[in-house]
Amino acid sequence: MAQPSKFVLINEPYGVVSDPMDLVSLIDRKVSLRMAPISGRHVGAVGLGFSRKVFLGINVELPGLPLHHSIHAEQFLVINLMLNSEQHLTHLAVSSSDSVFHAPCGHCRQFLQEITEASIIQVLIKDPALGIQEFVTLKSLLPRHSNLLPDLLQARDNKLLLVSSEGCEDRLLLRTALAAANRSFAPYSKCPSGVALKDREGQVYRGWYIESAAYNPSLGPVQAALVDFVISGGTKFEDIVEAVLVEKRDAVVSQEKTAKMILETIADPKCAFKVFHCI
Amino acid sequence: MAQPSKFVLINEPYGVVSDPMDLVSLIDRKVSLRMAPISGRHVGAVGLGFSRKVFLGINVELPGLPLHHSIHAEQFLVINLMLNSEQHLTHLAVSSSDSVFHAPCGHCRQFLQEITEASIIQVLIKDPALGIQEFVTLKSLLPRHSNLLPDLLQARDNKLLLVSSEGCEDRLLLRTALAAANRSFAPYSKCPSGVALKDREGQVYRGWYIESAAYNPSLGPVQAALVDFVISGGTKFEDIVEAVLVEKRDAVVSQEKTAKMILETIADPKCAFKVFHCI
Ligand SMILES: [Zn+2]
Ligand SMILES: [Zn+2]
Repeated sequence: MAQPSKFVLINEPYGVVSDPMDLVSLIDRKVSLRMAPISGRHVGAVGLGFSRKVFLGINVELPGLPLHHSIHAEQFLVINLMLNSEQHLTHLAVSSSDSVFHAPCGHCRQFLQEITEASIIQVLIKDPALGIQEFVTLKSLLPRHSNLLPDLLQARDNKLLLVSSEGCEDRLLLRTALAAANRSFAPYSKCPSGVALKDREGQVYRGWYIESAAYNPSLGPVQAALVDFVISGGTKFEDIVEAVLVEKRDAVVSQEKTAKMILETIADPKCAFKVFHCI
Repeated sequence: MAQPSKFVLINEPYGVVSDPMDLVSLIDRKVSLRMAPISGRHVGAVGLGFSRKVFLGINVELPGLPLHHSIHAEQFLVINLMLNSEQHLTHLAVSSSDSVFHAPCGHCRQFLQEITEASIIQVLIKDPALGIQEFVTLKSLLPRHSNLLPDLLQARDNKLLLVSSEGCEDRLLLRTALAAANRSFAPYSKCPSGVALKDREGQVYRGWYIESAAYNPSLGPVQAALVDFVISGGTKFEDIVEAVLVEKRDAVVSQEKTAKMILETIADPKCAFKVFHCI
């Protein structure tokens, strides 16, 4: 399993952020991570959990693939929160440079609605040129949106069972993918799924499918596992040599073809990819 | 080429809509079109062009594929506007039932920003239960968004040239895909692309890639061509038997693998798929 993430920042020496405005000073720490080879536009997101721990996100673009497979910094941050079992997000700051903090794009404003208390998430807006520095609610950034009361960040067990483990050559990888699928958030399609990845050194990463009520902002299980890979220090997707997907048999929303295509494009060309079904 | 769309509605007998509130009565006409086999939630969008012609959109879900490949009704509407060379969208109404009109989701609020005068698009909000019936600006629905002044709906010629037409067995299909690529909107990646599809009866449909500044809301060229297929009366994607994609050689944002995967999943299993490169 991945080591504790180096991007779960705790604001020393207190281990907590006492003033949310301190988020501003933390954005610098993400600068060294650059995974946006298509746009060259590097976005960082900093979020404060209910525990007052600080989490980071960066945008990740997948070269050779259409842009709708990309991971936004805010989505990366949400996966980071989930991987660390943080059950709330109270404050958020998004920056594409070091001094200006802007509102999330519409895609992310929608994606974040899956968090139970989305409407009261405080978003930092800061623009020294305009003399603006304030927190506004996410609700004010996506007005006229009806709340569905989802619970993305809550603990979850989908209680899935493997139909068969036949063909399994790596028990850890399969168990990790199944455990990930059990944490998947798919309340709209009821098609949870999980992915486990292994790198050249045998380290294992995991991620699960996260669904958006608006469908398109949904994040696939491979993307989620790539977040685990990145927060654990991975920098080159070609280092991924083995992958397992667990999803429901006859899932109307199947990740198999897309997961395979993404891995064929970005992972080691010889990356093994296996699918196991569950019920 | 596709026949004039049966969903370019003109409000008879005047050929124009004199009162935007008349959009409300037009939403009924879309009900017979249902292409949302995953959610079962059928969304309709009605838009008024600068010409006062009325255009429709519906949501299209692609069974067997992850949800981020879906087409939202508002995106469908935008493609419909472009296929008909309508250069403005002044009013928009979105409904998932016959009487309630709601604001677009965040993904669509972002996608629509590619229209030059996005901020002043009037969006109908109507909820009889709450006694609400009013138009609000798109700007009010996506506040704190900085305008990039794009020009999605303007006439465009990307002046692309085929590297080679070797292997071409159907000149019409290739010419159609190239013409589509020339109308593609890809100002951020500079990787325009176009698709032409042929059905069992030899009818040809076309669509082009539309990019969003926020990346993920971008719409692929296959999806755009599916809109042409649907507005021309197509109902079963399995009727698609041949496809050509034109995209740039060495495009950093390549549609090839994703287009192939989508067509393998939804088109005739024997659907021929060819890619031609351009410069
Ligand atoms: Zn975003
Ligand atoms: Zn939408």
